[in-house]
Amino acid sequence: MASSTVPMGVYLWKRLASLGIEHVFGVPGDFNLTLLDEIYNVPELKWLGTCNELNGAYAADGYTRIKGHPAALLTTYGVGELSAMNGVAGAYAEQAGMIHLVGMTSRPIQKMRALIHHTMEPGMDHAIYIGMSEPVRKTHTFLMDDSTMAEEIDRVIIEGVKSRLPVFIYIPTDVVSVQLDAKRLETPLDTSIQNDKAAEDDVVKSVLELIKSASKPVILADVLTIRHGGRELARELVDLTHFQSFSTPLSKGIIDEDHPSYGGNYNGTVSFPGVAEAIHGSDLVLNLGPLLSDSNTGAFTRDVKDENVVLLGHEFCQIKGKKYDGIHFLPVLRKLVEALKKDPESYQLPRPSKEARLEAPLLNKSTSGAIEQSYTWQRLGKFLKADDIVLAESGTAQFGMPDATFPANVRYITQIFWSSIGYTVGACLGALVAAKELKLPGRVVLIVGEGSMQMTVQEIGSYIRYGFKPIIFVINNNGYSIERAINGPKQQYNEVSMLWDHQKMLEFFGARKETGIQSKSYKCTTIEELEKVLTDEEFAKADCIQVCEIVMDQFDYPWRLTKQIEISRERAKAMAGKH
Amino acid sequence: MASSTVPMGVYLWKRLASLGIEHVFGVPGDFNLTLLDEIYNVPELKWLGTCNELNGAYAADGYTRIKGHPAALLTTYGVGELSAMNGVAGAYAEQAGMIHLVGMTSRPIQKMRALIHHTMEPGMDHAIYIGMSEPVRKTHTFLMDDSTMAEEIDRVIIEGVKSRLPVFIYIPTDVVSVQLDAKRLETPLDTSIQNDKAAEDDVVKSVLELIKSASKPVILADVLTIRHGGRELARELVDLTHFQSFSTPLSKGIIDEDHPSYGGNYNGTVSFPGVAEAIHGSDLVLNLGPLLSDSNTGAFTRDVKDENVVLLGHEFCQIKGKKYDGIHFLPVLRKLVEALKKDPESYQLPRPSKEARLEAPLLNKSTSGAIEQSYTWQRLGKFLKADDIVLAESGTAQFGMPDATFPANVRYITQIFWSSIGYTVGACLGALVAAKELKLPGRVVLIVGEGSMQMTVQEIGSYIRYGFKPIIFVINNNGYSIERAINGPKQQYNEVSMLWDHQKMLEFFGARKETGIQSKSYKCTTIEELEKVLTDEEFAKADCIQVCEIVMDQFDYPWRLTKQIEISRERAKAMAGKH
Repeated sequence: MASSTVPMGVYLWKRLASLGIEHVFGVPGDFNLTLLDEIYNVPELKWLGTCNELNGAYAADGYTRIKGHPAALLTTYGVGELSAMNGVAGAYAEQAGMIHLVGMTSRPIQKMRALIHHTMEPGMDHAIYIGMSEPVRKTHTFLMDDSTMAEEIDRVIIEGVKSRLPVFIYIPTDVVSVQLDAKRLETPLDTSIQNDKAAEDDVVKSVLELIKSASKPVILADVLTIRHGGRELARELVDLTHFQSFSTPLSKGIIDEDHPSYGGNYNGTVSFPGVAEAIHGSDLVLNLGPLLSDSNTGAFTRDVKDENVVLLGHEFCQIKGKKYDGIHFLPVLRKLVEALKKDPESYQLPRPSKEARLEAPLLNKSTSGAIEQSYTWQRLGKFLKADDIVLAESGTAQFGMPDATFPANVRYITQIFWSSIGYTVGACLGALVAAKELKLPGRVVLIVGEGSMQMTVQEIGSYIRYGFKPIIFVINNNGYSIERAINGPKQQYNEVSMLWDHQKMLEFFGARKETGIQSKSYKCTTIEELEKVLTDEEFAKADCIQVCEIVMDQFDYPWRLTKQIEISRERAKAMAGKH
Repeated sequence: MASSTVPMGVYLWKRLASLGIEHVFGVPGDFNLTLLDEIYNVPELKWLGTCNELNGAYAADGYTRIKGHPAALLTTYGVGELSAMNGVAGAYAEQAGMIHLVGMTSRPIQKMRALIHHTMEPGMDHAIYIGMSEPVRKTHTFLMDDSTMAEEIDRVIIEGVKSRLPVFIYIPTDVVSVQLDAKRLETPLDTSIQNDKAAEDDVVKSVLELIKSASKPVILADVLTIRHGGRELARELVDLTHFQSFSTPLSKGIIDEDHPSYGGNYNGTVSFPGVAEAIHGSDLVLNLGPLLSDSNTGAFTRDVKDENVVLLGHEFCQIKGKKYDGIHFLPVLRKLVEALKKDPESYQLPRPSKEARLEAPLLNKSTSGAIEQSYTWQRLGKFLKADDIVLAESGTAQFGMPDATFPANVRYITQIFWSSIGYTVGACLGALVAAKELKLPGRVVLIVGEGSMQMTVQEIGSYIRYGFKPIIFVINNNGYSIERAINGPKQQYNEVSMLWDHQKMLEFFGARKETGIQSKSYKCTTIEELEKVLTDEEFAKADCIQVCEIVMDQFDYPWRLTKQIEISRERAKAMAGKH
């Protein structure tokens, strides 16, 4: 009896479903349609079309950040994969990852090098685009050989899951029906992280010893902790040690901000008073999952010396200068937490008193008049509820949000390293889908500037199409204010169209009487107006999709942005002087 | 006395202005702002911001097609240049070309390999993205060396103009102020095409001889004639020879369709009756600027034998099988036209009679009821006026439009080779800008499907922002009909959001009472309704921006699409049989 087989298309979808994927993002094109046909034979999966591929990649990124495993993105070769490129690159930079499936011309057509649509010139190898993505992926496979197809699919998916970087699978149309051994599917993919055990134990032991002897230990939990699956463990570590604990601009929310041990958001010297002092003055910084980019280190003003730090990264761990290459923090953190649980008293500090907690200063006490940056972010923080998912767009939102104090268990998405404007509008769709799959109890709150929103606005139509009900705050401040802060505050190039009527946006995209889709839209130019919305219980319930437009002055910037730019300018001047 | 200098930024902008560029497209970002500052020192140029970079690239492509010289597109490195990639690739495939300027981190920052925003990982070379664009450009320069900067800029611009392919200039921020010799600007860039004179003369002589001896000569003027600057010469050739003359799907409109010599649109056997017969039966096909892609040759059913054809291309000319490599058609065509002008009677056929003209059959005689594909395109053709610019989006519009007969001097833009949906919405902005610069008398008419429009819709906001008044026909047929025709007509993946209200679109983007911007919007579900709009003189005047939504059945496809798919399927079957 012949062993049973499944078409390659089904095999691939089944493997993706096994990761926990329930929805696949992307745009159909004639070279991925046969693959898409097979998705309807895999009941675990649903196709979720986006308006364009860049938005699809952003959505996949946002989904990955919430789900904790890579999303699947499907495009067509040439036009589709290239349109998605920037979104995939962002998922590489910020280690969200995704599995990018690209439908290609059939193998016989490739062999002929036919001048088919989406190629560029006579005689061109249809695989030419594969090389273009090389820097933005961990690995790829180009499914040309029937005999290795199944193992190649497995290999690439596993690498994608483990690395949290984008991986690509290129799929000629004729390959979808190739029959693969169904038995393989009975063996789950092994995506577990394995360290060298001796080195791992050495790291754990050393950290435990250091914890015991430290006089001013702190925890600095950065974003790669979340990306590489350590969020819950980090939170346990905080609970078990009672150490004063900090997040960064990228990891904000990783530690509950109402937690007695929470010390604040650390961004080098671009932090609230006391924060940098606590980190820089500590003799043991347990630094989890660091990502040391400019805007995540206060323009490189992070000052944590090797002799005072334990770095627990996904590619190496480092104990006060001693580097353990290839040691992934995840099993280390797991063992640490286990050890602490067994004997917490030996390691923990006294539970911090409420009085000793480092509180954020109140920046703006206004109760009326114009809405200023110094007012907005702390106020929005108060509007949030436990379990909300919050997305802060590149620009003023992302530099303002660290001013806010979040309630417990807020999941925060911002892209302050890759910094592609428009990202959050797509990412929000992914977050909405992920939250639905996970049945998360919180709301999804998107905060986006009007200029950024213009980049990717059509995906707001997808929120409506798929029945989602996010709260969308549109920061309307007449152009690219982050750019105004950096250069040419009054230059024409920093302007965007101010003719859009955000109050009509949801209506245009589908929330209207005749569709039966409810929505609400508000425009606030004063604190009084904004307060009215933010204290409205109906608004807070988020029973329908809502827009709240917040009008601010174009030359008003968050203090963190101004300060970071000042530091960068001073450094550039000093460098030019030396030059 | 020291010779005078200009900052590199000014030098670059001056060189671009010298090509005829008056507007520069793109999106500002912190690494191109100092370059943008210099644009205000060059009064010939204006900055025209687009909503996102992909749309900016599409706009640059559309502008190039109308202006006949490359547009300039400005982005920021990483996020911006990658977002534009698909649009640039399309301009490569269809030889529209553009000059893509990418603002980068300063040279000192690059040297440090700082983990600045828009990089991807520690230690990364900031120039990594330069390699990614390699397949979609003719050449590039990375301005790192002060001493060669000016000549490099000149070289790249010249290659861009001559090749009609995209070229890239990568500009670190600190380079903008490098002082370059102003005297260079006094020497204009030499972008003229130079052939080997002997070979060129040989080609001209041979063609003239062949013309004299041919019994059934025809002209087949394809799209690369337009791209490489031969449109007017091709039209003169038709006038001078009286030969029956044909366009292709990509070059439609190159020959006036009310011209006595016009024979129709040739797309292999996917053409109106008589068209393929005329070409295939000719003993001398003067084939100008061929681009032999699938959808420009009726799925490769073009049947023009070497012994019957003169190919006049931009990379080679070929006389009945004899190939002249490196001979560009432009000087050849110029000499041909000169020779014919001197002695037209020796070469021309008798002026064709009106009766002998190959007329397009009327496909649909309905005067009421549902609007069908067979009705729409011929009717829209009749709506057009001389000198209009028409853009037909990828999908049914582009497969339907060849049914139409255009009035004189219509300029037609479609992207049936690269076939990136959403393209025309961006390209239309570029066409509007180009038409304004050239003071063209016609209207700009965009025809786009609702699914394609969702890809790039925000740029309609830019039409309004910059005061343009195109007529926008939205083909509303419930999803990706071209994909339905190809695979899975009833599959869910071919659906798009049908919740958008196109009647509210212009209002949302800015045409409202309070802005003082006029607009009109119509929705037609029957022929009667459509006729009312198309015969309305006010509508035809295009005094304000207008939308006319045409509702059609989702399973109704243009016959040319259906036929081409049938041919492709039969061939695939035959290939599979041989396999």
